[in-house]
Amino acid sequence: MTRERVQALLREVASGAVSVEDALVRLAAEPIEVLAHSTVDHHRAVRQGYPEVVYGEGKTPEQVVDVCASIAARAGRFLVTRSTDDQRAAVASRFPEARPNSLARTIRLGGLPAPGDAAERRVLVITAGTSDLPVAEEAVETLAALCIGSDRLTDVGVAGIHRLLSRAEALLAAKAVIVVAGMDGALPSVVGGLVRGPVIAVPTSVGYGASFGGLAALLTMLNSCAAGVTVCNIDNGFGAAMSAARALGT
Amino acid sequence: MTRERVQALLREVASGAVSVEDALVRLAAEPIEVLAHSTVDHHRAVRQGYPEVVYGEGKTPEQVVDVCASIAARAGRFLVTRSTDDQRAAVASRFPEARPNSLARTIRLGGLPAPGDAAERRVLVITAGTSDLPVAEEAVETLAALCIGSDRLTDVGVAGIHRLLSRAEALLAAKAVIVVAGMDGALPSVVGGLVRGPVIAVPTSVGYGASFGGLAALLTMLNSCAAGVTVCNIDNGFGAAMSAARALGT
Amino acid sequence: MTRERVQALLREVASGAVSVEDALVRLAAEPIEVLAHSTVDHHRAVRQGYPEVVYGEGKTPEQVVDVCASIAARAGRFLVTRSTDDQRAAVASRFPEARPNSLARTIRLGGLPAPGDAAERRVLVITAGTSDLPVAEEAVETLAALCIGSDRLTDVGVAGIHRLLSRAEALLAAKAVIVVAGMDGALPSVVGGLVRGPVIAVPTSVGYGASFGGLAALLTMLNSCAAGVTVCNIDNGFGAAMSAARALGT
Amino acid sequence: MTRERVQALLREVASGAVSVEDALVRLAAEPIEVLAHSTVDHHRAVRQGYPEVVYGEGKTPEQVVDVCASIAARAGRFLVTRSTDDQRAAVASRFPEARPNSLARTIRLGGLPAPGDAAERRVLVITAGTSDLPVAEEAVETLAALCIGSDRLTDVGVAGIHRLLSRAEALLAAKAVIVVAGMDGALPSVVGGLVRGPVIAVPTSVGYGASFGGLAALLTMLNSCAAGVTVCNIDNGFGAAMSAARALGT
Amino acid sequence: MTRERVQALLREVASGAVSVEDALVRLAAEPIEVLAHSTVDHHRAVRQGYPEVVYGEGKTPEQVVDVCASIAARAGRFLVTRSTDDQRAAVASRFPEARPNSLARTIRLGGLPAPGDAAERRVLVITAGTSDLPVAEEAVETLAALCIGSDRLTDVGVAGIHRLLSRAEALLAAKAVIVVAGMDGALPSVVGGLVRGPVIAVPTSVGYGASFGGLAALLTMLNSCAAGVTVCNIDNGFGAAMSAARALGT
Amino acid sequence: MTRERVQALLREVASGAVSVEDALVRLAAEPIEVLAHSTVDHHRAVRQGYPEVVYGEGKTPEQVVDVCASIAARAGRFLVTRSTDDQRAAVASRFPEARPNSLARTIRLGGLPAPGDAAERRVLVITAGTSDLPVAEEAVETLAALCIGSDRLTDVGVAGIHRLLSRAEALLAAKAVIVVAGMDGALPSVVGGLVRGPVIAVPTSVGYGASFGGLAALLTMLNSCAAGVTVCNIDNGFGAAMSAARALGT
Amino acid sequence: MTRERVQALLREVASGAVSVEDALVRLAAEPIEVLAHSTVDHHRAVRQGYPEVVYGEGKTPEQVVDVCASIAARAGRFLVTRSTDDQRAAVASRFPEARPNSLARTIRLGGLPAPGDAAERRVLVITAGTSDLPVAEEAVETLAALCIGSDRLTDVGVAGIHRLLSRAEALLAAKAVIVVAGMDGALPSVVGGLVRGPVIAVPTSVGYGASFGGLAALLTMLNSCAAGVTVCNIDNGFGAAMSAARALGT
Amino acid sequence: MTRERVQALLREVASGAVSVEDALVRLAAEPIEVLAHSTVDHHRAVRQGYPEVVYGEGKTPEQVVDVCASIAARAGRFLVTRSTDDQRAAVASRFPEARPNSLARTIRLGGLPAPGDAAERRVLVITAGTSDLPVAEEAVETLAALCIGSDRLTDVGVAGIHRLLSRAEALLAAKAVIVVAGMDGALPSVVGGLVRGPVIAVPTSVGYGASFGGLAALLTMLNSCAAGVTVCNIDNGFGAAMSAARALGT
Repeated sequence: MTRERVQALLREVASGAVSVEDALVRLAAEPIEVLAHSTVDHHRAVRQGYPEVVYGEGKTPEQVVDVCASIAARAGRFLVTRSTDDQRAAVASRFPEARPNSLARTIRLGGLPAPGDAAERRVLVITAGTSDLPVAEEAVETLAALCIGSDRLTDVGVAGIHRLLSRAEALLAAKAVIVVAGMDGALPSVVGGLVRGPVIAVPTSVGYGASFGGLAALLTMLNSCAAGVTVCNIDNGFGAAMSAARALGT
Repeated sequence: MTRERVQALLREVASGAVSVEDALVRLAAEPIEVLAHSTVDHHRAVRQGYPEVVYGEGKTPEQVVDVCASIAARAGRFLVTRSTDDQRAAVASRFPEARPNSLARTIRLGGLPAPGDAAERRVLVITAGTSDLPVAEEAVETLAALCIGSDRLTDVGVAGIHRLLSRAEALLAAKAVIVVAGMDGALPSVVGGLVRGPVIAVPTSVGYGASFGGLAALLTMLNSCAAGVTVCNIDNGFGAAMSAARALGT
Repeated sequence: MTRERVQALLREVASGAVSVEDALVRLAAEPIEVLAHSTVDHHRAVRQGYPEVVYGEGKTPEQVVDVCASIAARAGRFLVTRSTDDQRAAVASRFPEARPNSLARTIRLGGLPAPGDAAERRVLVITAGTSDLPVAEEAVETLAALCIGSDRLTDVGVAGIHRLLSRAEALLAAKAVIVVAGMDGALPSVVGGLVRGPVIAVPTSVGYGASFGGLAALLTMLNSCAAGVTVCNIDNGFGAAMSAARALGT
Repeated sequence: MTRERVQALLREVASGAVSVEDALVRLAAEPIEVLAHSTVDHHRAVRQGYPEVVYGEGKTPEQVVDVCASIAARAGRFLVTRSTDDQRAAVASRFPEARPNSLARTIRLGGLPAPGDAAERRVLVITAGTSDLPVAEEAVETLAALCIGSDRLTDVGVAGIHRLLSRAEALLAAKAVIVVAGMDGALPSVVGGLVRGPVIAVPTSVGYGASFGGLAALLTMLNSCAAGVTVCNIDNGFGAAMSAARALGT
Repeated sequence: MTRERVQALLREVASGAVSVEDALVRLAAEPIEVLAHSTVDHHRAVRQGYPEVVYGEGKTPEQVVDVCASIAARAGRFLVTRSTDDQRAAVASRFPEARPNSLARTIRLGGLPAPGDAAERRVLVITAGTSDLPVAEEAVETLAALCIGSDRLTDVGVAGIHRLLSRAEALLAAKAVIVVAGMDGALPSVVGGLVRGPVIAVPTSVGYGASFGGLAALLTMLNSCAAGVTVCNIDNGFGAAMSAARALGT
Repeated sequence: MTRERVQALLREVASGAVSVEDALVRLAAEPIEVLAHSTVDHHRAVRQGYPEVVYGEGKTPEQVVDVCASIAARAGRFLVTRSTDDQRAAVASRFPEARPNSLARTIRLGGLPAPGDAAERRVLVITAGTSDLPVAEEAVETLAALCIGSDRLTDVGVAGIHRLLSRAEALLAAKAVIVVAGMDGALPSVVGGLVRGPVIAVPTSVGYGASFGGLAALLTMLNSCAAGVTVCNIDNGFGAAMSAARALGT
Repeated sequence: MTRERVQALLREVASGAVSVEDALVRLAAEPIEVLAHSTVDHHRAVRQGYPEVVYGEGKTPEQVVDVCASIAARAGRFLVTRSTDDQRAAVASRFPEARPNSLARTIRLGGLPAPGDAAERRVLVITAGTSDLPVAEEAVETLAALCIGSDRLTDVGVAGIHRLLSRAEALLAAKAVIVVAGMDGALPSVVGGLVRGPVIAVPTSVGYGASFGGLAALLTMLNSCAAGVTVCNIDNGFGAAMSAARALGT
Repeated sequence: MTRERVQALLREVASGAVSVEDALVRLAAEPIEVLAHSTVDHHRAVRQGYPEVVYGEGKTPEQVVDVCASIAARAGRFLVTRSTDDQRAAVASRFPEARPNSLARTIRLGGLPAPGDAAERRVLVITAGTSDLPVAEEAVETLAALCIGSDRLTDVGVAGIHRLLSRAEALLAAKAVIVVAGMDGALPSVVGGLVRGPVIAVPTSVGYGASFGGLAALLTMLNSCAAGVTVCNIDNGFGAAMSAARALGT
């Protein structure tokens, strides 16, 4: 039941054309559609502060372009994740001002012009090793799409703990921290013991053998001895950024 | 927003005391509560044909009695599953006409007076071994609570395939079949290849070692080579009965 | 022992050429072959209402065509699942009236001319996301092969619960519901709490990281808090359709 | 503190511009070395806003009392989690003003006198079923210890989705939401799609069979289709509260 | 259809009272029951050489005695496995000549009077450690029930390989070998490389931590680099003995 | 210590050149090498009845040819498993009389000229589905290499149980049975309940989704309710044949 | 073949009573038993530097005392692990000078009089939390039995990294380090990056929920990003000590 | 450095007893803060005896060359592991004296000119099968880079135990042993029972089916019945070599 239909029904009640009893039945029969006055996309932007994000996997380049165009028409911006080279090329051809990022496998229209500019509520994105960078970059791009600035701290895994500790100032200054780590996934426990704000741990599938595709790092993080560290799905930089945005109050 | 409140609002619209616009706002702001004119219990009985079932685990006998009384007052019947001896004793003391079943760990008020009476839409409950009986019994009691008759076929596991095949008539006559099996969980595949109607497989935690608490039987059933066999949680005779009831159209 | 051999044996008893005792021994020695008077394929059609379905995986195009021809000769129809492009092309070349479906990876002869036509016992096939569509499509094609109509409800995952709730009418009208979902696999729990008839949950391998190839969704569905939801193997749209057919009474 | 800053500081000491005492203070203010002169407890309170929490498991009542006394002497408050009845009795005997909570298995000194009082930054703690209450209660008590108010929304699992939707106002008003669910663990996905702020999911070990001690709910939550939902360890209400506190900025 | 009923039917055909066609229909309609002329127990003894074995778990002492009496009446012997002290006491009270074995948790009537007597086809039962003895003893008792002699080789795990190698003669003389091992489960690989006859590996749940209840030993044995080693369920000494009996041709 | 060295030592003792004490020390110091008088390959043929089998995986065609030539020179026959097309072509070019089998991925020199010839101790190799054939074929070729005849029973899975039962004669006549099955792996339980001799179960990786690469079938077989069924590694037709050969007494 | 028998045989060769050829055959037939001149226990002490350790689990107090007496008679010392209170009491009653340790669940005779005395090759035993102490204590007692001194560093988990770093001197001075940690198991990665000598990681079953009995910590340690860290079984303090002893060269 | 020592040092600077430069050196020698002025690579070489090893996976050939050049400039040597053909070619073109090893997938500059030369502290690298060679070779190359000699013992799996036992001398002479094994992973248990020094077990992913990518071998090794065997990650020859180096005291 759209807003228009509810309005029409109420007018009929006001005019006496429909009885109170009949109106009650019709309203009760469709309790949900009352929210259906807007499309899903519009509603999500209203409800959660950002239009639906386009998940590239399994779509043709044309399909991705179509969805981007539909979202851009209403919201003036979009973000595509897990995209292929072809998808990014197709989107970039239609939206020359969009910013593709092959490391992050994203392309976005709007948001921050570039990571690195000054902002009240910056997020620090830390990686344990260089192989974890694509996941971190996906987080950075998602934050940018949400107009949240970010800084990077790269290759500071716990086997060389001094690398992290020497950057204590950056750690303490961050409003929220995303920690991306594969292999033993131990870095979030150390970071979580040092900082006071939100610490969002992202296990990566980096490692071989008994890392079991990121399972080892995932379990490590869920069992973190630093209280209040929370965990995202394996390789899910996008989700970590969304979680940081929730914590910072987008 | 209860039914009464919606009714009152519509009357105010009808009388002109509230404008159409204002009523629209108030209705849109609470799209959900429109359904709240009845309690959850009442609504479930309307929506799904049976009042909420009481899950005994983790409740005191007094709490179970209270919930039973509340449901009985409105629905005239109830079913408690996973109950302790104390819980059943307490309920039986309050409701002398309720039927406790210590093997099934259930107690119910109403429904079929006893399994075994004639009925259009009987369910056949098959067990592979005698140790699977408690799960089968929970299914039988749940069916009885739903006023669905049932028959049992016990200890007909596939290692002695003739035991099952010699009962082909019972198999073919059943409107729906629940197959309860632990260990290798192979029985539903054979049954599923013989009968035409719904076959609902219930793995049990019976077995030791590499049965891993029913995981082996669960995986067997999910991979059944008999098309259209569906699977419930381990030891979940209650769920299997509910599924059979859905298929039979309660 | 074929029907002809039993007949011959009985004639020999009738004529006195074989004694009752000897006949007894020979019958007892081959209790099973009595059923062997017909081929397996014929018997399945009689027993379960549809000829054996051709599983394409691991077969050459020629083999698939041969099996299809054999089944079509007797049953006048067939269904191939998990087929390759080459297999479908080969079958379509031999059977021009067969309907290939590249999304579902099926090809079928006979059954419903097309999904969407009116029918007493339609199945509603719901998907949580667009990536779940191939599995849903396999279910739709299998239903069509079984002459069961179906409707689709696509991309109504629980993260935007209003999308599902706004379609309550379609939900409540369905005779049976197949719910296809990957990632968190949460949709069947919501659907199972809304509708009264059979709800068949199909986990998909959609998702990455800790979805572990559909394991996460599978476990979610097995633990569904909506009573009576049953579960199929991962990505098994075919099995879900067969299960729906069992419930609807083909 | 970089080499240059240490060098400069030492030069100032050498020149008399900075006294030994002052230099010592400034060196001690640096996050690392510094710690070696004070106890861990003091530093954690400074660094993370709350003194070390006492984990009761595996300690004697006397040991728990000793640790509590040590912390109370410096911080004026404490929190014990996973405590036994004996431990709580011993602590309560020593600290009559402490508040034991047998459902949450906690005892705390200080913090909020009681959940429910008005506060800027309240947390909404939602449970899918009544069996999830102990975990929710541990979260509530931990929040109270951190002087954060909380509200409860109990037994609103997705199988009766209207129960949750009818409380939309409470959902939308919360600054942060903790969602506690066992079995299918589907609730956080629905909540995460409705609210804009932090959503912290806590799987519980409630369920049997294929819930595998909470594994099913854990995987569901990690794969949540609602972006930005993060996950804690199984049954870890304490960790969820600490995470909420991080997000709210204690 | 019992043997008597088939006989009667054939006599009616012979007498002309029933036509060949009618007899055919009746036989075809009950293909299975032809085997039903004897009880399951009788048939198994005929088919597989030993009456059904009584699995004690989950039965009352009275039930166990009843089943034993029923089997003894026809077969003159029985074997009970996984029995409790009470069950064995009850059986021994009824059958004073039965031999209870508390280590193996068995009681049997008949079979070999004692392990150790001379026999053509003896089985060698090897254990890696002393904690594996109960499983080995269950195998020895089962073999005795099947009238197969056995010898023991105890505590010869691979960490002290000389212990095994010094017993090469016993190894080479055995007709079949059962190897019982927990922890690393490595012993069957060594034995399988030394002997030529059947080697049946039984993992035990002995070990702690990463043995995961015998899973480690189970996987070791399944991956044995000695070709032709086969594996039983965890702790399943009974199954190993049955397998040896199959190989030796009972 | 080779045979020659031991001989020389004993001669020195006999001649008095070495004292008994010294000889004792030298023998005790090298207990192992006593067996080293022959090469490993020779010894295995003596010890276990067949020369070492060549595992093709990870070798170059040249390496495979070299090993085959080395074994053929001494034993006059060989068997290569898990070979590539290139490996088989290379071996066939060097040994024109060798028999390659692309389905089984084997090539062998010697053994049975072809499966199907009459023999005392034939093995019955049963497959549940046609996709299990490559594993069965590997078993057949290995048996042939060991000069053991075999028969096949194909596509007799339990979902059409009559297919198996109609072949009871073949089942009962077999000296040993290898049962190859993927998906639910239920077939060995039925076969194990019918036949008396050795039943060796081989799970295959056939299936998708929750078969988890053969894990489901593996667990089913380990938990078989038919006593005395033993299990090989997934897809290990070679091992099953070696196990059958052990049971038959090569 | 015992030492005596070899000696006798050689004497017969020397005397001409046995020919060189015959002696050769007899020696070759029993290549292994040459080592059997001493008991297993004696040989292990010779081969690996310490007599067999008594594993208490599953033994009666009397059995433990007997084994201890047997070992003490030859070696003058013993170590019992995983012992019960009753076992330790029985051993202590027989050997008053033995040192029981209820935290470590050990009792030993001989070795270091007490941990803490000066020694060249001391081992540092680090624990992440206080709950890990029993495992650490088992390591300390085992080291003492091996006459290796040890020091403890307790409760220095990575969530408060300063606790560890402030003890850098102790870390750097240790000849070998055993790191005992449950929950996230992250501590060995940090330690492994700081020290140069052997680092032996021991996961403990401390933790709840997704620690899965120590699996999480085990995987963390196997995936340690600090190169050269090796791992023991869960809770296996004994094994860690033995490994340290191997590295230090007992 | 404790507060007191810092205080004392600062007083000495203030008094002129210690110069600013000297104080700086002494502060820099302290493990933590210090590091912020120099690169990680330098410190690791000082701290752990070898510069950072280059992990090739996921880097471009140019990136690998750049890192190698950077390390070579300071340390005069380097080691690259898990490298591609292209990476090794690029490095070899820039550093013609570097030694590429395609089996080990490594390239190194410096270290031992070749494995095989005489050295005090040689490591014995044992493999169970030929397929385990690449992992063993990675260990050998890593040892060479660390200037540690090594010997190989290849294809001595436990199924032919004599192959290993005949090499007892090599085993007993080794200062440390690395045992590389896939499939059943049983070899380290045998080796661990024979030798006295460090035994480092490396599971490999060699095997198929139920080896689950090396999991079976990994669990076997963790549960080794030979005390003091420690375990590395699957296929981690590099880590095993680093562990051996730690034990030998690089």
